[in-house]
Amino acid sequence: MRADARRNQLRILDAARAMFSEHGTAAPLDDIARRASVSIATLYRRFPDRAALCRQVAVEGYETVLAEARAAQEVAEEDGPDAPLRAVERFLTGVVEQRSRLVLPLFGGPAFHDEETTVLRHRITGCLDAVLARGRERGAVRDDVNATDLLMAAAMISRPLPNTPPAWLDATARRHIAVHLDGLRPGATHHLPGPGPGHPEPEHAFSGEPPTTAENAPTEHRA
Amino acid sequence: MRADARRNQLRILDAARAMFSEHGTAAPLDDIARRASVSIATLYRRFPDRAALCRQVAVEGYETVLAEARAAQEVAEEDGPDAPLRAVERFLTGVVEQRSRLVLPLFGGPAFHDEETTVLRHRITGCLDAVLARGRERGAVRDDVNATDLLMAAAMISRPLPNTPPAWLDATARRHIAVHLDGLRPGATHHLPGPGPGHPEPEHAFSGEPPTTAENAPTEHRA
Repeated sequence: MRADARRNQLRILDAARAMFSEHGTAAPLDDIARRASVSIATLYRRFPDRAALCRQVAVEGYETVLAEARAAQEVAEEDGPDAPLRAVERFLTGVVEQRSRLVLPLFGGPAFHDEETTVLRHRITGCLDAVLARGRERGAVRDDVNATDLLMAAAMISRPLPNTPPAWLDATARRHIAVHLDGLRPGATHHLPGPGPGHPEPEHAFSGEPPTTAENAPTEHRA
Repeated sequence: MRADARRNQLRILDAARAMFSEHGTAAPLDDIARRASVSIATLYRRFPDRAALCRQVAVEGYETVLAEARAAQEVAEEDGPDAPLRAVERFLTGVVEQRSRLVLPLFGGPAFHDEETTVLRHRITGCLDAVLARGRERGAVRDDVNATDLLMAAAMISRPLPNTPPAWLDATARRHIAVHLDGLRPGATHHLPGPGPGHPEPEHAFSGEPPTTAENAPTEHRA
């Protein structure tokens, strides 16, 4: 792709994220093109339809989460018994900081089941599994939490509440994360209901992909 | 209000919650009336405009949260050192269970600053303050968490993620709550950043009411 084509694509994706965030995924493509300062013809040349545009926004969302999960995995490998819990902190705060890039798949829009998004989701889960495995190995993280729990925690904590200023949300999220990290330590007194360790339904987290049968529900996947 | 008028009002409010939830607060009033099986004239007799309808949905949302906060306060007064933490559990699971009634103010819509909603928010915060005070008294709850933290936790945990089936969300929320409860115990190792105990900005939680100045931001309200 030529440099100016790549620049246009980035501008369209930035504009799409902003418009989807403010007006939902039904936002007019004309308005997205205008916000990106490109012609509608240019937009259609890059993205033949709305679904293609949504999908690319979602792919970049997954890539953003994957980058945070990889950074967390590196932290988990550092020396010291607390490294795995610091890795979880790194992941949760990283996702909160990147939330404006996670409009899709986090805040709405269609679910994607294609190979690229599936591979991305499995890679994210793989990194988080590695973080938790290291945490169990060092006795730093309770053993009944799984990668899906971490992903869903990141999704819940990072999703902005309506009409609330980002700085206030960030401060609140940081406090919630601090409580959550203490809850992740071993010696838990509260039994975790539902799925056991492992990755029961990794494809759901951040995916909007619902279980199709009752057997898929995580409560059915007890260890 | 006559019995049939009251019945119509309840049907309109149920329909409004469902339509706002599916299509946002811009959902056509005609469609809401149709879903409620009342005429548009009946809808306008009860709610002169969209703002009046949104406001009543939000008021009922606050009333629902207040009922959960009051139930939690009763649990906190029960015997035993664990009662306050069970009270927090009661509050968080209660809000998750009631989430379909919390479309406004939780999932979007305008912010309300009138006396009725302000009083409701202060009552909610008052109940949660009482729960936390009892928890600190009995050494059951860490002393750096405040009522706003609990409200924001309830909001984050109860807000549904897109395209995700309710049963799966409920299972995930229950696991998150269990981790969170362990994190709320005394002996915390993670310092909570931001506001100290008390109720720095009770009117924000569940309100969508942004701080108007930097001085209002919770990080400025250190104890």
